[in-house]
Amino acid sequence: MYRTHKLGELRAENIGEVVTLSGWVATKRDLGGLTFIDLRDREGVTQIVVPQDATEEMKEIISKIRSEYVIKVTGEVKERFSKNDKMATGDIEVFITNIEVLNSAEVLPFEISDDANVNENLRLKYRYLDIRRPAMMNNIRKRHDMMMAIRRFMDESEFIEVDTPLLTKSTPEGARDFLVPSRMNKGKFHALPQSPQLFKQLLMIGGVEKYFQIAKCFRDEDLRADRQLEFLQLDMEMSFVTMDDVMEYVEGLCKKVFTRVTGEEADYSFEKMPYHEAMSRFGSDKPDVRFGVELKDLTSMMKDCGFKAFSGTANSGGIVNAIVAPGQATNFSRKVLGDLETYVKTYFGAKGLAWIKVTEEGVNSPIAKFFSEEEMAQILETTGAKAGDVILILADKAKVVYGGLGALRLKLGNELGLINKDSHKFLWVVDFPMFEWSEDEERYKAQHHPFTSIKEEDMEMFLAGDQMDKVRTNSYDIILNGFEIGGGSIRIHDRKVQKVVFEQLGLTEAEIKEKFGFFVEAFKYGAPPHGGLAFGVDRWLMAMLKQDSIRDVIPFPVTNKGQCLLTEAPGNVDIEQLEELSLTSTYEEATK
Amino acid sequence: MYRTHKLGELRAENIGEVVTLSGWVATKRDLGGLTFIDLRDREGVTQIVVPQDATEEMKEIISKIRSEYVIKVTGEVKERFSKNDKMATGDIEVFITNIEVLNSAEVLPFEISDDANVNENLRLKYRYLDIRRPAMMNNIRKRHDMMMAIRRFMDESEFIEVDTPLLTKSTPEGARDFLVPSRMNKGKFHALPQSPQLFKQLLMIGGVEKYFQIAKCFRDEDLRADRQLEFLQLDMEMSFVTMDDVMEYVEGLCKKVFTRVTGEEADYSFEKMPYHEAMSRFGSDKPDVRFGVELKDLTSMMKDCGFKAFSGTANSGGIVNAIVAPGQATNFSRKVLGDLETYVKTYFGAKGLAWIKVTEEGVNSPIAKFFSEEEMAQILETTGAKAGDVILILADKAKVVYGGLGALRLKLGNELGLINKDSHKFLWVVDFPMFEWSEDEERYKAQHHPFTSIKEEDMEMFLAGDQMDKVRTNSYDIILNGFEIGGGSIRIHDRKVQKVVFEQLGLTEAEIKEKFGFFVEAFKYGAPPHGGLAFGVDRWLMAMLKQDSIRDVIPFPVTNKGQCLLTEAPGNVDIEQLEELSLTSTYEEATK
Repeated sequence: MYRTHKLGELRAENIGEVVTLSGWVATKRDLGGLTFIDLRDREGVTQIVVPQDATEEMKEIISKIRSEYVIKVTGEVKERFSKNDKMATGDIEVFITNIEVLNSAEVLPFEISDDANVNENLRLKYRYLDIRRPAMMNNIRKRHDMMMAIRRFMDESEFIEVDTPLLTKSTPEGARDFLVPSRMNKGKFHALPQSPQLFKQLLMIGGVEKYFQIAKCFRDEDLRADRQLEFLQLDMEMSFVTMDDVMEYVEGLCKKVFTRVTGEEADYSFEKMPYHEAMSRFGSDKPDVRFGVELKDLTSMMKDCGFKAFSGTANSGGIVNAIVAPGQATNFSRKVLGDLETYVKTYFGAKGLAWIKVTEEGVNSPIAKFFSEEEMAQILETTGAKAGDVILILADKAKVVYGGLGALRLKLGNELGLINKDSHKFLWVVDFPMFEWSEDEERYKAQHHPFTSIKEEDMEMFLAGDQMDKVRTNSYDIILNGFEIGGGSIRIHDRKVQKVVFEQLGLTEAEIKEKFGFFVEAFKYGAPPHGGLAFGVDRWLMAMLKQDSIRDVIPFPVTNKGQCLLTEAPGNVDIEQLEELSLTSTYEEATK
Repeated sequence: MYRTHKLGELRAENIGEVVTLSGWVATKRDLGGLTFIDLRDREGVTQIVVPQDATEEMKEIISKIRSEYVIKVTGEVKERFSKNDKMATGDIEVFITNIEVLNSAEVLPFEISDDANVNENLRLKYRYLDIRRPAMMNNIRKRHDMMMAIRRFMDESEFIEVDTPLLTKSTPEGARDFLVPSRMNKGKFHALPQSPQLFKQLLMIGGVEKYFQIAKCFRDEDLRADRQLEFLQLDMEMSFVTMDDVMEYVEGLCKKVFTRVTGEEADYSFEKMPYHEAMSRFGSDKPDVRFGVELKDLTSMMKDCGFKAFSGTANSGGIVNAIVAPGQATNFSRKVLGDLETYVKTYFGAKGLAWIKVTEEGVNSPIAKFFSEEEMAQILETTGAKAGDVILILADKAKVVYGGLGALRLKLGNELGLINKDSHKFLWVVDFPMFEWSEDEERYKAQHHPFTSIKEEDMEMFLAGDQMDKVRTNSYDIILNGFEIGGGSIRIHDRKVQKVVFEQLGLTEAEIKEKFGFFVEAFKYGAPPHGGLAFGVDRWLMAMLKQDSIRDVIPFPVTNKGQCLLTEAPGNVDIEQLEELSLTSTYEEATK
């Protein structure tokens, strides 16, 4: 037997008991003939004491023990001389009479401590040591808590978990697939799923009615801070439901999960904001609504103004919008304003960033001279800027203005401390457009995916092929503190409507058959009305735990280069393995 | 709103209520001006009635409705004229006042009925229709119930679920890996995991202490009835535990899961049987112990007998064993016995199958003449054969005899109805040998995997390099009704022992580093004693539900050729996709 108690368990009540404990040596210190060891396991730390009258043999063993040795000890629980309020077991210590080294440990590549500032690549290479740190262990436990909370809620709500294949066919998500060569079917390839989208809709056609799955999904895309090659998705779908039905379930789920994971409450009002409102007020389809600094529209007033850059944009289909940096008139030097301009130029293709400082004495701005006093007063009124504020203005195509100001708004929110990070707020963004114009391809693309149903009110417009970019869908994203944690829609179940959508997307009959043949076929046999949602589990957890990197909530993540530093995957393979798959690598040749 | 009630829900108490229902038309029949429709959803069937005085419009709609149309109806619940005891809703019917067709259905490729005997390939092509059948829907629900029961038990037992990567490196399971070419790291490949074995041991080194995961695992092997390319594995691992600790948890889990899935009780005595006993008594390391027909050893008595085939084998390291087919002396014609012989020759390489029929008048056997009366009496006594029985005897190497008689025993058990299929029995088989001699490679291979720890009692023998095939491990398989549903071991945590195992397996330092480098490295930093288990979820469910094919408990299985008939995966890919991966297919060339 390795232990009678875990190391976070012993209390004053246990004083006098003889216990056996096992764990890792966190620290060892000698104090006047006594040796104190902090022994650690998953549940906590207990102080053990090697008494002065220990046998020579025991002293010999103790002398060899270093940090992270795994030991087993037996001894009596005693009241601690100087109690430690910060430890759950701080009232006691265990005077040992027996010790056994279960395993030794060489000197570690880094210290097991949340305070040590260790290079991330080193942490990832030795992930198994990194997770001994309480902070990482906590993230792993919270991940488990989250998954259990999800599954319990879904089970109690009568959803059935169905696992769908990972060795499957390309899904129509638009990103790049990972391919898996088939040995049994030479020359053919499986694809790893980007999502179980088609399968879950087939399950609805199959009468499962309420389905969920926490599924591994894959995208072979270049990585960013919040992206990984593989990610966990909570996927759900329901039949015979409206948008409101789906959203009600999701709200219940979000509450349950949030409470279980954080132990706190969030703002559960779940405001529903149309996509167009989110864009025009916050410049984002996933706004953080915990603070203001909203976008203000100056377009119409700029049409006749004397500043050509603004009037020209306003008169040619572009927009002019402003946000206000509160109380920054003194802080924002030319340098700071220049940096903000560079930011919106670099990342959003803005041509420039105009600014107006408002002071008690009046306004201070390079563009002030272009505006009449009346016009300037109107700018101040529309933006609501007061003395001490700085107005920041972008004029461009809507995409650039929303992108730039939306990002600037967030930057200000974070850097000026405008966001109460202890508050949490959920938000629905709804009614996304069906199509968006692709400048590159000069055609409409489905903004969500081509199976999203169209709002009843916009159906006429859609069938008429009119103002396609105004056609809205029964779609919804769930946002937590500015993170899109999930999104979905009510799907098309009417084959006639689906056909028109495919046509509008410019797909030929042959392409439809090639891409979605079996899927379109399935809708012939009695498809019920249905809709659902998919959550990005990793990002959702990251938002709840307020972690900056998605890698800190994933047990074994890859780097931005798609490499696992622990296993050194991806790795080399034998030429025989490729031969069995009827493949040759052209890589060596390419580098010669 | 699509419905006020589900279709398995309405009872006599609801009579008089106006309800709205949605579902699929299971059957429609006209009976003297009334139309009856059995409407089906996931939860059941409700009879709806179109009254004689329905509007022309409604009659028009009804006339067009066919099987599997999706409809929504509103009407009043009435007491049924002729009640139907077989339906949960058989006391009532709903007289409708309104009907809406939510979706039409073309004529289906097969009838939605458990009685229809549909070709499996057709079922798999239209899996979404196949799962509308109550039997398949039940299998899918039971799969969900099983997964929930597992997770609840593990959660309550303080296991933490940790998901490990699927885009990873080869695992040392010995089967063939699926490879995933890396685009970001040209010329390199990920492997899909055959199991999370290395990761779970790393999690133990990381201090997780109790881990579990229901993980997708992959093996690129040719398929059999109970094999798939991808399969679900319940994987678990614990630190600071003995074999008994692990087994105790597993027994608790097996009980919980069995009860939740079947609603019944099994024999939960969980007998522990050493591997050698299982082989010698049942010719199998996963015996179905719900019936007798045990193997009887005749080897020593045959050493001096006059039948050369037996004495030769017995004197040259082989064995002579028998089983008894009870009461089959009259039934087993020469043809039946010939078929049994062909069976053991074909599948197990036996040279022949000897038989002795026991009758009231004496024995009847082609080999009787080789034995004295005394010898024959001894055979009868050892085998316990009585008048009316048939003794079947194999003489060969132990592997052939155990394989052949073990399989014959099962065949007899099934075909003669010796197994009570309503009973369920769990069994532990323990203490597997560490090594087995590979005839092909002329070297020892790890029977389980090279991280399995060695029994304390056999350690001396092991370190001496003596009688390697006798060295036993701390290993255990859990068997349900003759299906191996899980297996595991206490692992090696001592680097010195691990080194010897690698040496015995003939691995060089370089190979160890190449194959297990990061893994061996991890053991330097304080690895706790640990052990665990992995269950084959699909096979476990198959055993509990008494299904003959593993494909019937998997939502979207592949055929024995590794193809998904629904999606037609694996499929073709564009040449550009391969170019991006620096690959070319040699397949076209090979077939030219």
